[in-house]
Order: sequence, then C-alpha cells, then structure tokens
Amino acid sequence: MDNLHDFIRGTAILGTGGGGDPYVGRLMLEQELRKCGGIDLINPEDIPDDMFAISVACMGAPTVFVEKLPNAQATITAMRKVEKELGRKFNAIIPLEAGGINATLPLVVAAQMGLPVIDGDGMGRAFPEFQMTTFNIYGVNCSPFVMADDFENTILLETDNALRTEVYGRAVCVKMGGIAQVASYAMTGAEVRRTCVPRTVSLAVDIGRTVRELRVAGKEDICEGLANYFATSDPPRFARVIFDGKVQDVIRGTDEGWTVGSVTMSSGDSDDELFVSFRNEYSLAKLNGKTVAIVPDLLFILDRETGEAITAETLRYGQRVKVIGVAATEEMRSEKAIEVIGPKASKIVEPFVRLEDLAWNGEQ
Amino acid sequence: MDNLHDFIRGTAILGTGGGGDPYVGRLMLEQELRKCGGIDLINPEDIPDDMFAISVACMGAPTVFVEKLPNAQATITAMRKVEKELGRKFNAIIPLEAGGINATLPLVVAAQMGLPVIDGDGMGRAFPEFQMTTFNIYGVNCSPFVMADDFENTILLETDNALRTEVYGRAVCVKMGGIAQVASYAMTGAEVRRTCVPRTVSLAVDIGRTVRELRVAGKEDICEGLANYFATSDPPRFARVIFDGKVQDVIRGTDEGWTVGSVTMSSGDSDDELFVSFRNEYSLAKLNGKTVAIVPDLLFILDRETGEAITAETLRYGQRVKVIGVAATEEMRSEKAIEVIGPKASKIVEPFVRLEDLAWNGEQ
Repeated sequence: MDNLHDFIRGTAILGTGGGGDPYVGRLMLEQELRKCGGIDLINPEDIPDDMFAISVACMGAPTVFVEKLPNAQATITAMRKVEKELGRKFNAIIPLEAGGINATLPLVVAAQMGLPVIDGDGMGRAFPEFQMTTFNIYGVNCSPFVMADDFENTILLETDNALRTEVYGRAVCVKMGGIAQVASYAMTGAEVRRTCVPRTVSLAVDIGRTVRELRVAGKEDICEGLANYFATSDPPRFARVIFDGKVQDVIRGTDEGWTVGSVTMSSGDSDDELFVSFRNEYSLAKLNGKTVAIVPDLLFILDRETGEAITAETLRYGQRVKVIGVAATEEMRSEKAIEVIGPKASKIVEPFVRLEDLAWNGEQ
Repeated sequence: MDNLHDFIRGTAILGTGGGGDPYVGRLMLEQELRKCGGIDLINPEDIPDDMFAISVACMGAPTVFVEKLPNAQATITAMRKVEKELGRKFNAIIPLEAGGINATLPLVVAAQMGLPVIDGDGMGRAFPEFQMTTFNIYGVNCSPFVMADDFENTILLETDNALRTEVYGRAVCVKMGGIAQVASYAMTGAEVRRTCVPRTVSLAVDIGRTVRELRVAGKEDICEGLANYFATSDPPRFARVIFDGKVQDVIRGTDEGWTVGSVTMSSGDSDDELFVSFRNEYSLAKLNGKTVAIVPDLLFILDRETGEAITAETLRYGQRVKVIGVAATEEMRSEKAIEVIGPKASKIVEPFVRLEDLAWNGEQ
C-alpha cells in the first residue's frame, strides 16, 4: 500500500499541474487492487515484438474531473471498439501520460481486465493534447482513436494525423460534458520499445517514495531533496528549485475543454515574483519577467512543507509553495519532439531553451 | 434535361430556405448524368423487404456551402465505412432531405455508384438537424453514423439516440470547416416503406415543372399557381400565399454550424409586415406579430415574378417576394413527429398549430 500511495503522489507531481485530482485516481485504483491483488508491470526492454498494446486515457479539463469522474468501464468499451476495428485483441496496456489521473486510469483498466501494464508512457509527464506523445512523434498511428461517453456511446476517428484527431475529438469531448474516455495508439511491442518514454511508472513510485522518505526523515527541505533525486538519478536530469514563495493571484477558466490560466507567486523575503501560465499543465515560468522554465521541461508547484503536488485547478491564494524545474528526457527534447510538444504547441511564442541554459536568480 | 432543371428548382423550393445553393447541386448532377445516362428511381411501395438502403447527406451551414462545396467522393467514403461496420453492402440510396443540396447529393452519389434512388426521404422538406427525420421518429437507428471530411478522414458515431449523434457530429462538423459528408440511417426495404415520406423526389420534379409551366404560360401569379398545385394534389395539402412584399431587413449569422437569423418583409400597398426566422430553414412566420405558419409546416420565400426559391443565405434587401405556407404531410404532423421536428426542436417556444388553423390577413 506504501507503493500505491507513493505512486499516486508521484503521478500527481509528474502531472506538472494537469491531470486532475490524484485523490480520485487513488480511490479507483485502491478498490481495484483490493479485488485483483496486484498488477503486472513490464519493463519495456522485456517486451516481445508481437505484444499488442493499447493506450487508454481520459480527455478533458481537470476542472471538470473534480465533479465528473473518469469512467473505467467506458474506457474498456472504447478499447473493445478498437479491438473490433482492428480484428485483434490487446494483451497489454500502456499509459498515455506519466502524470495525473491518466497515469492511474490505465492501471485501473488493466486490473479490471487482468492485463499487464507497460512501465513507460507517451509523454514522460502530462500534456494537454493527444498528439503530444512520443508515440506520435516517432511514428505510431493514433488511429483508430475511439472515444466513449458515460452512456458508452462510442466515436471512432480515423484521420491522417494525430493533431486532426485531437481537434475533432476535443470538440466532441466538450459536448460529452468536458470528459471523454479514449483508447488510441494501438501498437506492437517493437513500436512500444522504439517510441515510449521508458520506466515512468517506476519513476512515479520513486518520486512518491522520495518525498515520503524525506518527510519521515524530518528533512527540512523536501523540495530541494526531490530536485536532488532527479539530479542524481540514472541518467541524471537537471533539476532545481526555481522559486520559494506564496500564491498571490490565480486566473483560471475552462476553455474548449482545457483548464487555462496563470498563477503569480510572490517571495516572502524579496521582491521576486514568479509567473506560471498553464493549459491543463504548467508550461512557462517567468521570474521577474525572465523565462526560467519552458515546456516540454517539467514544472512542479509543490506544497513547500509536505512536497505534495498542487494542480492547476486547486491553486488558491495564500498557498506556500516551492516551484521545481526538471529537464525533460532526451526523447522529449529532440528537434522532432519540440515541434510537437514544444512551446509553440502550447501557444507560447518563445522558443524552447533547455532549463539548464536559462538564467534565474540573477545568475546566468 | 427539363426534368433535371425542374427537379433542381423543386428541391430549392422544398429546401424551405435551407439546403444551400441549388446551382451547385445542378452542376454536380448534370455532370454525373452526362456520364451515366440516367438514374433508376424506385417507388417506395415497390421496394422489396430485403433491399438495404443508406441515406447520404452533407451536414453544415448553407452559408459555408457557397464556397466549400459538397463532396460526393467523401460521401462514398463515409458510406463504405458504414458498409464495413455492418458487414453488408447497400443496394439503394435514400435521400435524407427532400430539399436543397441534400436532395441532389444522393442522386450524384447513386449515379457514381450505379445504385437506384428511392423516391422518398426522411424529412419531406429540409430540416436543420440529423435527428429531425421520419426515419428517427418511427424507429430507424441512425447509427452507425459516419462523417467524412475532404481529406476522407472518417468519424464513426454509435450512440443511443439520434439527437446525441447530432450534437456530437455537429461539433466535429464545425471543426471540419462547417461542412461534413454523412452516411447514416442504414435500413431495410421494410423500414423504408414504414418510415419514409414517400414520393418526394417526384414531388420536387412536379413543383419545378409547375413553376416552369406557369411561367411559360405567362401566368401573372406563379406563386398562387404553386399554392394551388399543393391544394389540388393527391392527397390535397393545405397551401396559401401568406405574404406579398419586399425584403426590408435581414439579420444572418453562422452559429455552431447553422445559418441563423431572421428576415422582415414589408408590403407595398399596406402597413403589413411579415417576420420570418430561420435556422438553416425558415421555421416561423409572424404577420404583424401574429403567427401565421410554424415548423414543421413548410414556408417558401419565392421571387414574386419567377417563382424561384430564395434561400436564407441569399436573402437581401429589396428582393420582391411572395411567401407561401404549405401543410406538412400527416406523417410529419403526428404527436411523435412534433416532438422531434416541431417548434421546440427549432428553439421556438410557441406550440405547433396547423397552418390551416392559423389566422392571417385579419381572417380567422
């Protein structure tokens, strides 16, 4: 059970502000684990070529997920429809995202169906749109893409590119009440190995455990400790606490199926101000007007005392927070990847600059 | 060729303001007829039980059709996808609407595929939404409902009701650029006989011929003559010229994939004013504030000299017009039908009252 709580805590952090309330995901998964006992996790390296995996997720705005919960049964309906279309059964589930409810939902579905889960995903974090996956970047077809609503009505999309699928699907998602269950990116074991961000289910567990252990050990600065975990992991990932302060102002709305807005944080002991904008996920951080982190690099806003994630829809005035920037993995930073998951895709005009090359606190 | 021109003129009139420019439909059909020579038209009464028909149409706002044309090839793609889903080939096409471009498109598709067309449809006129069909009213499932865009991307919807399909499909249609090609309401010959509005392809030809003959005969009042055609048809349908005047004011916009607005007409020789609102099709007429015709009864706005239809997207200041009201057929006026195609479905608060029971010109 420690493992489960660590995992949920980790997925909330990897949600980088998006992905919805981890509480809901935990309850769903706890209930399934009690029934099935456990879920097989497969290292992508060990996947046979002829394994056939499907990625499942819910589409929509996290502001909606708070009251309209993800629906595992509808997800299975969507998955069955893809199977029917392809005339082939799936024997593994691969998460679409490493963060938020979409990191948990695949495990819930896998538990219900008795299928193993691949220890990897298509984002290495959470992203706001369906084409923003390493699966898509490195050539896996997202069609047939099936959406299902709570009444198990299904919509099967077959398009020439994943962005178009996202655009058509999002319009329906809004009409479905702001949330839809999706099965897409059917792929072979060989494709999984070639395109996924590996070991991200384990990563979520490790992140959650790190935070828990730091807390149990009474460490004063859990966030510094978490940044240090990334910096010393294998391979090491650049990570640093960018800001320490208080939430001053939040602007937030639900726009065409996304939670969009920004948060401004002020420092207690200086005039520093950090501005972070989001579109489901945190995508840009500016310290006193200067960019200090930009998508696809990861931004966490954490409770400064407990190290728990604060998601975009739960931001509110007065929260004491620390903000951590973490370098995205190399497969997420290639030229090809930046086109699909870089700043432009999140409607940000600035170019991508690696976290480690950006200045903050007056340092260059 | 007279037949073709009559048919096109008639479909434009049966479009009741919606359905798009008949010119486009004529060109498409002329071209196909030149290639294939002719199209078999089947009287619904003669259809064998085991015939398997599909209804094809384009979805969207007529304001869009002016520059983004219907696409027969994409329609065939949609139809093939329904066939694949059902594992059964279609051997007839049935129009969804009797008016506008959607009365012509099925003939274009049938010509291209060498299939017969059923002389009937699901609306007996044109309507703005996909659930507004006698097929739906009398129990034919609209799923599988397949939409295709110009790139032949397809979307297959399977839902528990036609209204939901309309809502989900319309959202995608807007993202497709305001027009989509649709194949839906797959049905057997028995279902066609039980649910269609019969003989509406012939009706369009008859209407067009009536107008042409009145014109050739130099009749002064073509519109009175057309009303008389309905009143003396078998079975007779109540019809009357409601207004004679000039277009004074048009308010028109494109909203979520529909052409919506209203037109006000003034009389030349009195203070009378006729207000007609539309949502793709003309749905409500008020003479000096008093309702004189309401959906599903038919409203035509015609050029007062030529008897040609004026569609909602071509209304403009100064046009000399006559407005005709025609009773809908009995299958379109049942209690069940009024729920689906009555005023409420077109966002009109007033109840349905039969045209013949409504007052105008001071008479009761």
